[in-house]
Amino acid sequence: MTNARNLITDVAGLRIGNADDATLGSGVTVALFDEPAVTSCFVMGGAPGTRETDLLEPDKLAPGINAVVLSGGSAFGLDAASGVQAALREKGIGFAVRDAVVPLVPQAVIFDLLNGGDKGWGRYPPYRELGYDAVQNAGLDFTLGTVGGGYGATTANLKGGLGSASAVTSSGHTVGALVIVNSIASAVIGNGPHFWAGGFEEDDEFGGLGLPARISPAERKLIWKGGPQPATTIALIATDAVLTKSLAKRLAIASHAGLARGLRFSHALFDGDTIFAAATSRKPLRDEAAEFTELTAIAADCLTRAIARGVYEATALPYPGTLPAWRDKFGRE
Amino acid sequence: MTNARNLITDVAGLRIGNADDATLGSGVTVALFDEPAVTSCFVMGGAPGTRETDLLEPDKLAPGINAVVLSGGSAFGLDAASGVQAALREKGIGFAVRDAVVPLVPQAVIFDLLNGGDKGWGRYPPYRELGYDAVQNAGLDFTLGTVGGGYGATTANLKGGLGSASAVTSSGHTVGALVIVNSIASAVIGNGPHFWAGGFEEDDEFGGLGLPARISPAERKLIWKGGPQPATTIALIATDAVLTKSLAKRLAIASHAGLARGLRFSHALFDGDTIFAAATSRKPLRDEAAEFTELTAIAADCLTRAIARGVYEATALPYPGTLPAWRDKFGRE
Repeated sequence: MTNARNLITDVAGLRIGNADDATLGSGVTVALFDEPAVTSCFVMGGAPGTRETDLLEPDKLAPGINAVVLSGGSAFGLDAASGVQAALREKGIGFAVRDAVVPLVPQAVIFDLLNGGDKGWGRYPPYRELGYDAVQNAGLDFTLGTVGGGYGATTANLKGGLGSASAVTSSGHTVGALVIVNSIASAVIGNGPHFWAGGFEEDDEFGGLGLPARISPAERKLIWKGGPQPATTIALIATDAVLTKSLAKRLAIASHAGLARGLRFSHALFDGDTIFAAATSRKPLRDEAAEFTELTAIAADCLTRAIARGVYEATALPYPGTLPAWRDKFGRE
Repeated sequence: MTNARNLITDVAGLRIGNADDATLGSGVTVALFDEPAVTSCFVMGGAPGTRETDLLEPDKLAPGINAVVLSGGSAFGLDAASGVQAALREKGIGFAVRDAVVPLVPQAVIFDLLNGGDKGWGRYPPYRELGYDAVQNAGLDFTLGTVGGGYGATTANLKGGLGSASAVTSSGHTVGALVIVNSIASAVIGNGPHFWAGGFEEDDEFGGLGLPARISPAERKLIWKGGPQPATTIALIATDAVLTKSLAKRLAIASHAGLARGLRFSHALFDGDTIFAAATSRKPLRDEAAEFTELTAIAADCLTRAIARGVYEATALPYPGTLPAWRDKFGRE
């Protein structure tokens, strides 16, 4: 069962903000939690770019974090969390140590430095200000595709972008996924319109084409950016369930299955594939074994769907010679 | 491109041995390396059962290992490595420390204690002897399905089993997967004959049914063993490429994508999903970035295919009331 918005914001207790720059060809997405969220993460790519991920390990203190940033800019983009921290500090939000308030803002980045945008920013990159702006824009509704941290995202054969999807488990817990699809490979089968995610689509949310009955060896030929070019799919899974930090980590681990299903292929040497998982802790699990297991399975499905939606909703970058968007190539209903 | 056998033994430098016991309803599979193989592993399940996996970390010494065991028996089955060690010691095979020779034999197990077989073994379980026997039976050809460590394996709705598949990359490196499919969930879509792996099938290796063009919400309803019952899919990926231990670990990590694609779902709280990756080091990588990236992608595909083959080739356990085999239910061409 999907929710009204079919966005990660169907999970009570968080808002999403985006800021991007068409000249730069990049941007920032931030998830702001109303209350500190129990959060962990799991890095599976061979070339990650991250900030404040160590404190998300279950053996580390941080009982809850204030925001998660997914952005462009590769390692330069890690400045975005600084802008988010500045905006949260102005609101008095953060981990309080007597009079000091320290906003905890983990982040992961994608590599979008070679997408045609102008990356000649002088001494300091503009991601700090984009992070600050993204906080100001945060709300429950947001658009998908060439937006925020997904602005400059690409796949090997189509424009990538920002995706999201949500679902409700049979125990009534809401789970949602937010993803920046910047895959080293492809979200579609061959160079056709069908998504690898086709078997998981709800309510024609990414075109309703289903799956091809046969996939020929030619269509299974690997399609990827090639050579040593970093590329990364990064995501946030959120749920209103009450989770320990250890279970949040397991949710992040299990959700990588959803990343694997939405793309062929993933988790490569030049990928930085990273998933954060956050619990806004509104609704306890009654039967932990059963309800949590279903939650992880549905979370993976949400991520698979979000990946397809990120590509389906994308528009081409405004530079000559850039990759086509799915809709440019395959139209829409 | 697949190989002649379409088994992990298409990778030069290893043999597979199986031993199982119909009364016990369980068994052992061993991969024996002709020369010590550069091996690592990656555990992603929430309930693993393993032995000698710490030494597979890239920061640990062991430059090569002698065998990998995949077996039934849950934590009791970990005795199988002892039998493999005994057999290897008799042949003088192992890590030499002056006159002492220590066979290095990492292992992972599946939970098959409740499958109907007689687990009343008295003081000590029989896995040590099964491990010893499996070494004696090792060769290049072996059967799939209800065999060896896959003898007692099940999925939520069909008999599981031992699977394998192989492929050759465009750089001429061979890669193969060996898997025991004992999933907490399902390898088929709904309760029908189509495999989740359908898009990856080579040469009708698991029935040639392809994919259904549409998967209804009813067919997407989660199918799983339910409650706190452990279940696990464990695998070995092997390649003839020359890999460092660090790259072997990355191969194990990336191959989990193949596990995720072959099952819905995987990597759950009560799963012990673990993948070993071993390099028999016959053939150097010329362009590491490109050739290794393709190797990881094709390895994941092999594992997806091997999962489907393990279920497709299985026969039902010889006890009343056990799960049907795929062929019992859906026949064969």
